[in-house]
Amino acid sequence: MNELVVKGNVIYTKGMERFEVFENSYLVAIEGKVEGIYKELPEAYRGLPIEDYGNRLIIPGFVDLHIHAPQYLQRGLGMNKQLLEWLSDYTFELEKKFKDLDFARKAYEYFAEDLVASGTLRACIYASSSTEATETLFEILKEKGIGAYIGKVNMNRNAPEAILESTEDSLKGTIYLIRKYKDEPLVKPIVTPRFAPSCTQDLLDELGKIADIYHLPVQSHLSETKREVEWVRELFPNAKNYLDVYGKSGLLRNALMAHAIYMEEEEIMEVKKRDVFLIHCPDSNINIRSGIMPVREYLNRGLKITLGSDVAGGHRLALNDAMARAIQLSKLINMQSPELEPLRVSEAFYMGTKAGGAFFGKTGSFETGYFFDALVIEDHPLVAELYSIEERLEKFLYTGNSQNIYARYVEGKRI
Amino acid sequence: MNELVVKGNVIYTKGMERFEVFENSYLVAIEGKVEGIYKELPEAYRGLPIEDYGNRLIIPGFVDLHIHAPQYLQRGLGMNKQLLEWLSDYTFELEKKFKDLDFARKAYEYFAEDLVASGTLRACIYASSSTEATETLFEILKEKGIGAYIGKVNMNRNAPEAILESTEDSLKGTIYLIRKYKDEPLVKPIVTPRFAPSCTQDLLDELGKIADIYHLPVQSHLSETKREVEWVRELFPNAKNYLDVYGKSGLLRNALMAHAIYMEEEEIMEVKKRDVFLIHCPDSNINIRSGIMPVREYLNRGLKITLGSDVAGGHRLALNDAMARAIQLSKLINMQSPELEPLRVSEAFYMGTKAGGAFFGKTGSFETGYFFDALVIEDHPLVAELYSIEERLEKFLYTGNSQNIYARYVEGKRI
Repeated sequence: MNELVVKGNVIYTKGMERFEVFENSYLVAIEGKVEGIYKELPEAYRGLPIEDYGNRLIIPGFVDLHIHAPQYLQRGLGMNKQLLEWLSDYTFELEKKFKDLDFARKAYEYFAEDLVASGTLRACIYASSSTEATETLFEILKEKGIGAYIGKVNMNRNAPEAILESTEDSLKGTIYLIRKYKDEPLVKPIVTPRFAPSCTQDLLDELGKIADIYHLPVQSHLSETKREVEWVRELFPNAKNYLDVYGKSGLLRNALMAHAIYMEEEEIMEVKKRDVFLIHCPDSNINIRSGIMPVREYLNRGLKITLGSDVAGGHRLALNDAMARAIQLSKLINMQSPELEPLRVSEAFYMGTKAGGAFFGKTGSFETGYFFDALVIEDHPLVAELYSIEERLEKFLYTGNSQNIYARYVEGKRI
Repeated sequence: MNELVVKGNVIYTKGMERFEVFENSYLVAIEGKVEGIYKELPEAYRGLPIEDYGNRLIIPGFVDLHIHAPQYLQRGLGMNKQLLEWLSDYTFELEKKFKDLDFARKAYEYFAEDLVASGTLRACIYASSSTEATETLFEILKEKGIGAYIGKVNMNRNAPEAILESTEDSLKGTIYLIRKYKDEPLVKPIVTPRFAPSCTQDLLDELGKIADIYHLPVQSHLSETKREVEWVRELFPNAKNYLDVYGKSGLLRNALMAHAIYMEEEEIMEVKKRDVFLIHCPDSNINIRSGIMPVREYLNRGLKITLGSDVAGGHRLALNDAMARAIQLSKLINMQSPELEPLRVSEAFYMGTKAGGAFFGKTGSFETGYFFDALVIEDHPLVAELYSIEERLEKFLYTGNSQNIYARYVEGKRI
């Protein structure tokens, strides 16, 4: 039996409203899953080797539900452009290069290394439209040992020829990757129509069928900018609204939708009914000038809100930066609408751990039965001396980086 | 004669509107000052040793005009509180500890090391009200070799007893430090009434006289929150407005004012007339929910706008983060008022180099005659291969950190 005992200051969120804190305690994981957290190690586990992290913090690993891996190289570039111009001037130009597998390997290695370093242990990732390059990304992430869903991006219109495929090729590549990776334990395929405007109706319909046949989740973009919402209305005149484009094609079962800034009432109801995971990408919201997701309103209505770095609309890969920025943006909303309370630290943390983690099953928390996906955080000795466990975590979220991450575990295994 | 030749991709701002770029060029500095930048090294300098930085970038060092050094330990803490509560719950509690010189030394060492690491080569710093601890900070920064103004904080009311001083002690300590450090080449004193509410009229008046006698610059806070503006109105009923409190005491000659979010028309005119440096501290603006400085409007009116990290209202010390955040906040304003254009990258960079550098004389640019205060930036080989010099700088500003800073120079000397 695979048993693990780690010792340190354990902190995580069970609900959004507060942190659960276990100072100087033992966490026992069996077969990769949390069995319990104890002030004194129970009789049954004595004798097991203890990985003692002293005064360090032990927290759930970060879960980033929205990243464009090929865009890692362009983050922080062209940030004064708006979405559609930025896509054509930077993103599409860069994605073309991923047909060169040597380039793809180097670029994805760089991305994957930084992703793990920054503490993201579960991620939902868009690759490019190149099937071969996407295969390369699968192989690289498998080696890293983290959990991920990776999507070959489906697009057959409204982008430069070089990154478009015929409907047939797009589907063929998708099915090839699904068959090859669907039974992997950690790195799995996800159906990924880039966004409604880049797919024809027949491509969307076929992707819906594939998601159904292989029981796969789906990721896409929803209502990021007003101009895009208008465009979708023109492209799909028969759909009730943007969300309905995906709904009609059967793409809303187990679905992730990024941004969702401009939703109509009917879409909000439907998102709730279908249990769609909405992904808040705060840096991207401002960089691209799309607007700000009304997170507090959505939370009040019981929607499932998670976090994404949205590299490269977002310029920072580390999810703790996204947590801090989500709080900052919620304060901007609060300054204009005082009844909409800013996000608490525990709420932002929950969004980037347990809420997002639910997409992968029981991950993102240290409740009994959850996978032990964890980061061990080391802060400055003066900080550790002066402040409480909860304050030290807040400080790490606002100011920490990969250099503060001392160890990483995925499903109980140190990576 | 002290001569230096460095080679690399030189980039800086002369004006706000664009970058000056010298790809793969030689920069010659004589006696610490830039003599010229050349594609081919002139005859006269051949034979000098060349510090060849290859494909790296050479940029002016960062100038941070607003930092509270004692608050370095608390950055990223209590961020859900508002200014006055946050000050009493966190800041004042922490500042008390600086009476313990052993603590002060450790805390200031930690701060100074990270400051230099993050690329700030000129800084205007608030210490605490403790004269002895401020002396410690002077000594530590002198050793680091960067340029700084340091102010012992003057405060004789409206804070806990433990960090208040009598008017007499506050002035005595101030004069002691001024006499000891006023002739230092790089680390000098600055008159620092914390902010109007923490000083009585007589303390402000005496500080004005001191600034005048010793020809010293002044730093303080101005109109950060609406509540504070009201408070100042109550405390100083004879002043025309917040700025006038400082003006009446002779504290606006060669002055730095942080925040200045809520200025009346008359204050704007006076700031312009007196040539006051206003300091934009973007992270702090949102963390504390003070509001957002209307930077574009101020620039349009010809005010002098510089940048500050405002640790610990701001949670990040690195000034490139402040540049990125200043752009982000300007986009938020732009989304509501489309006629107010977002800050360009060159504008944000200018604010954090040449505009702020002017407070120290000729620093913050590589024009002939400017001190050679520089950072050598190393980025990822794939980034260096794909993008232009200007794009690589933008990327560093958005995504870089101390690990990307390969070398640092102050007045031509590598530190």
